[in-house]
Amino acid sequence: MAASFTIRPAARADDDAIWAILEPTFRAGETYPIPRDITRAEALDYWHSPGHAVFVAEDGTCIVGSYYLRANNRGGGAHVANCGYMTAQQESGRGVARAMCMHSLDEARRRGFTAVQFNFVIASNERAVRLWRCCGFEIVGTLPQVFAHPRLGLVDAYVMHRIL
Amino acid sequence: MAASFTIRPAARADDDAIWAILEPTFRAGETYPIPRDITRAEALDYWHSPGHAVFVAEDGTCIVGSYYLRANNRGGGAHVANCGYMTAQQESGRGVARAMCMHSLDEARRRGFTAVQFNFVIASNERAVRLWRCCGFEIVGTLPQVFAHPRLGLVDAYVMHRIL
Repeated sequence: MAASFTIRPAARADDDAIWAILEPTFRAGETYPIPRDITRAEALDYWHSPGHAVFVAEDGTCIVGSYYLRANNRGGGAHVANCGYMTAQQESGRGVARAMCMHSLDEARRRGFTAVQFNFVIASNERAVRLWRCCGFEIVGTLPQVFAHPRLGLVDAYVMHRIL
Repeated sequence: MAASFTIRPAARADDDAIWAILEPTFRAGETYPIPRDITRAEALDYWHSPGHAVFVAEDGTCIVGSYYLRANNRGGGAHVANCGYMTAQQESGRGVARAMCMHSLDEARRRGFTAVQFNFVIASNERAVRLWRCCGFEIVGTLPQVFAHPRLGLVDAYVMHRIL
């Protein structure tokens, strides 16, 4: 049975816990197009960018994941949301990302978005691709060799999209 | 025979001329996902965003187009460039956009990029789609109904890509 997580808006008091999740993933450099040597302040500024609504997933009192939700574009493109998710590495496989994704779809609907688009799902991140498919996303674009993976070299990234 | 344009880096002294090109296009709201009521200051801040190299195309002493060049992503995605081009409406059809695109491909190569990606080419902008294809770009993704066109309603946008 899937674990149950509480998902709530992040406060700046959560920054240490969020950074503890972001840091190993950004340092590994395998899943986000973010400099591997990014500082704590730069990473938190990015996660909390203007226009990002940031949430955390808690298991009891422990923060096990975080995501942001934003408009993917402005003007005529403002009806499509975009999200970024990250799960604490030691919590991998427990359903945190799935719970955050489901929460984000509801949250996006609630805010009036009519679709969600992921702009850069790295193809070698097979677990993520599989999960987003399970959450109703389709691959609508394949960006050839746009990501320099630290172990695999140049790999593709997908654009994934779902209607809400 | 195609006209010949001089293309050079923009100076802030070109802001009036650039805004004269941006304003009618942003106000029309048919080709960029930018708010139609964007102010001059916001539009110029966007065009000159940090990390954007901005160029202008001149026909004699008259600025007839402008484009920006930037890295499309950071970290493992920093080898792919992104550009946005705009031609003065009264100069349409004279080859300004093609000249700027060719210039931008050279400029991107010179800066060490190995590919260029356009993230949001609105499908109803058929002239642009045709031109980018002529310039060697391929459609690598079709984003369904991601753009609210003021006359046509929801239309697709393309992701276009070419290797340098």
